[in-house]
Amino acid sequence: MQSPQYLRNGEAPQRLPPHFHSTVSVQKLRRFNTLILVFRFASFCFCLSSSIFMFTNSRGSNFPNWTDFQAFRYVLAANAIVTLYSFAEMGVSVWEILTGSTVLPETLQVWFDFGHDQVFAYMLLSANAAGTAMAWTLNGQDTCTASNAFCIQSYISIALGFAGFLFLGFCCLLSGFRVVCFIIYGSRFHL
Amino acid sequence: MQSPQYLRNGEAPQRLPPHFHSTVSVQKLRRFNTLILVFRFASFCFCLSSSIFMFTNSRGSNFPNWTDFQAFRYVLAANAIVTLYSFAEMGVSVWEILTGSTVLPETLQVWFDFGHDQVFAYMLLSANAAGTAMAWTLNGQDTCTASNAFCIQSYISIALGFAGFLFLGFCCLLSGFRVVCFIIYGSRFHL
Repeated sequence: MQSPQYLRNGEAPQRLPPHFHSTVSVQKLRRFNTLILVFRFASFCFCLSSSIFMFTNSRGSNFPNWTDFQAFRYVLAANAIVTLYSFAEMGVSVWEILTGSTVLPETLQVWFDFGHDQVFAYMLLSANAAGTAMAWTLNGQDTCTASNAFCIQSYISIALGFAGFLFLGFCCLLSGFRVVCFIIYGSRFHL
Repeated sequence: MQSPQYLRNGEAPQRLPPHFHSTVSVQKLRRFNTLILVFRFASFCFCLSSSIFMFTNSRGSNFPNWTDFQAFRYVLAANAIVTLYSFAEMGVSVWEILTGSTVLPETLQVWFDFGHDQVFAYMLLSANAAGTAMAWTLNGQDTCTASNAFCIQSYISIALGFAGFLFLGFCCLLSGFRVVCFIIYGSRFHL
């Protein structure tokens, strides 16, 4: 679908090439992509830290281990998946900023980004919520009395996971906006 | 913003009234609203059942009670909120099907629905995930040995909550679609 502005200005659509982009809109798109990149980087950092904190949360065989708790395993898995996804998407953003074109075909790319952002945001939130419930339960029990450091490290990991979710949520908003732009104007260029 | 079709057909925009709706699009909108109503009703039923199952999950002072577990309190609160919200939104849908107009101004209504669907979907998912983590923890412990019925009733409540989330997710997709339609055509009528 072409932008209705062409017709509103009283010009025939043929006068402008179908993929004409003004310098202003290219600059805007670059700024927009840089913002997405920043959010993806933040999400990557938080989820990676969360994964590392959870993965290293064991202190020998006599102390509690993160592998003993299903919810903590889920926290690690979800954070690790989002870390990998954010890393891949950072690459995609950098590519787009440098070359001006998407890695996948444009239609596929905008829907791929938005769909995955949504699904992974739900997954990360549910993992962190499950982890929080587990941490609440452990709080007054023997596990935390035996090894307080284990519990504190779990809390930090979950808090970092929530921060990762927050930035993934921002990415989700921006990629949703891109999808809407794409549906309206048939191109992610018209910001 | 007006629909670009008016201009594409070579007609002056003044010839058609700004809120002209064909019988076909009115019928389509009614069908669309009925679908939303069905999903809201399903969401309402599941969340209400989940709340009732959790609220009645106590068997005297010698047995475990749902109020003893923070995660279960969260499950009940989230499900109760979504129940009330779905009930209100069902009223809004019925009003729209009967009168053909929205309760709030159209712009506000489409964004209100979409925003609340999103936020409540995240809330319900996190509550159910927290409840699941708690149920996992209780599974092998004394609580479930002392009162197996308590644990089973919790599982049922959480499962119903997930079903409610599923239908709320469908509502979210449809209200997202309505927002996009509204942004593109300036009216929820152009399906």
